[in-house]
Amino acid sequence: MTYCVGLKLNKGLVFMSDTRTNAGVDNISTFRKMYSWSLPDERVMVLLAAGNLATTQAVVSLLDERTKAPDERTVSMLEVPSMYQAARLVGDTVKEVIRQSAPVGQSADAFGASFILGGQIRGMEPRLFMVYPEGNFIEASDDTPFFQIGETKYGKPILVRAYEPDMSFEETVKLLLVSFDSTLKSNLSVGLPLDVLFYERDSFRIGYQRRIEGDDPYFRTISEGWSSALKSAFKSLPDFTR
Amino acid sequence: MTYCVGLKLNKGLVFMSDTRTNAGVDNISTFRKMYSWSLPDERVMVLLAAGNLATTQAVVSLLDERTKAPDERTVSMLEVPSMYQAARLVGDTVKEVIRQSAPVGQSADAFGASFILGGQIRGMEPRLFMVYPEGNFIEASDDTPFFQIGETKYGKPILVRAYEPDMSFEETVKLLLVSFDSTLKSNLSVGLPLDVLFYERDSFRIGYQRRIEGDDPYFRTISEGWSSALKSAFKSLPDFTR
Repeated sequence: MTYCVGLKLNKGLVFMSDTRTNAGVDNISTFRKMYSWSLPDERVMVLLAAGNLATTQAVVSLLDERTKAPDERTVSMLEVPSMYQAARLVGDTVKEVIRQSAPVGQSADAFGASFILGGQIRGMEPRLFMVYPEGNFIEASDDTPFFQIGETKYGKPILVRAYEPDMSFEETVKLLLVSFDSTLKSNLSVGLPLDVLFYERDSFRIGYQRRIEGDDPYFRTISEGWSSALKSAFKSLPDFTR
Repeated sequence: MTYCVGLKLNKGLVFMSDTRTNAGVDNISTFRKMYSWSLPDERVMVLLAAGNLATTQAVVSLLDERTKAPDERTVSMLEVPSMYQAARLVGDTVKEVIRQSAPVGQSADAFGASFILGGQIRGMEPRLFMVYPEGNFIEASDDTPFFQIGETKYGKPILVRAYEPDMSFEETVKLLLVSFDSTLKSNLSVGLPLDVLFYERDSFRIGYQRRIEGDDPYFRTISEGWSSALKSAFKSLPDFTR
């Protein structure tokens, strides 16, 4: 599986993804699931991918125009006029990749992949989309300001409860690490290290990007601190009375 | 879907189940998913059911021997010599019910059902089992002292983190309500009211049993209190630093 989250804040966009891929529990690998394209001062786009690794890599390669010789590439993600068109491009590309894989007789489901796409193009607002394997997509709104793909359930309750649109980037990374920690503890197919990326609204460059390893001292603080903070929160509530 | 939890404590066993059943989101009903059998001073058995409602009701009817005239029933759940045999009886019964439903051409999966069975028979320890649709079963141990069936993911992180074997019944109900509240908030196919049952070790009678409705003041306190307790717990952790 996979766990990726894209979150829209007043201050910008934050993305986090794990790096585990697996074909059965006895065959795991580490692959980056976060991709970005940018033209400094003009646009930034970030893509998170979940699902069949062959599909997601093919989609990214096509978006990168890696089928062409390096000097003939005019990467379409850097040329689309709007984020809406970028989401459509991702959707069309994934549909195409799945269509090409499916006719050999296997179910198309096995080749499925979902994406979170976020970014901003100069003159327009930052936008955040979720693209389905069918190629259609939805956009984040004030009511639903974040998207999750992959193993979404374990880490959802804390996102729903603690997200605030005016959070700082630093608080948001904390929130995401709590959400990822709950997921890591419950699903073996989600694994460290994690990739994090912050895009600050109207900056048109990637603001901050890092890989968080398993021995990262801040991650350890959150993982251990959250267990005890959760226990004290739980203790603070009144017990049931018969 | 469904959400049911059975939990083993030093003090005894605690069970909680929701009551929503659904065939699509446009067809929901309320059904009790908690069943119990007892012979005062001799044995108590509690069964929680998730999955196809026709299957789970058929299993319970067969365990109750409702195919026989009332005065000919010698309910087998009250006669098996051990909890292990009780789990086997539930397993054999669910296998039989699924086998009878499946030959009409549909996949056996559609008729699947899982159960949590807990109880105690005089002269033996309290025991807690999870019975799979295939009829086989596993028993709770010190390492895994609780079982969940149905929509298990949203409510798992808090159970893993806050469970302690020496909890009181009152604390355990609080823990289960937090776990159920997270699930209710995230999955429409899990719904109020909730049934709760407590069996005190070596009592050989049902200790406490109640239905918790949506307007229950304690449930409201937990549901609202947990949101704010969680937010403060989250605030208490140090923010990320770039």
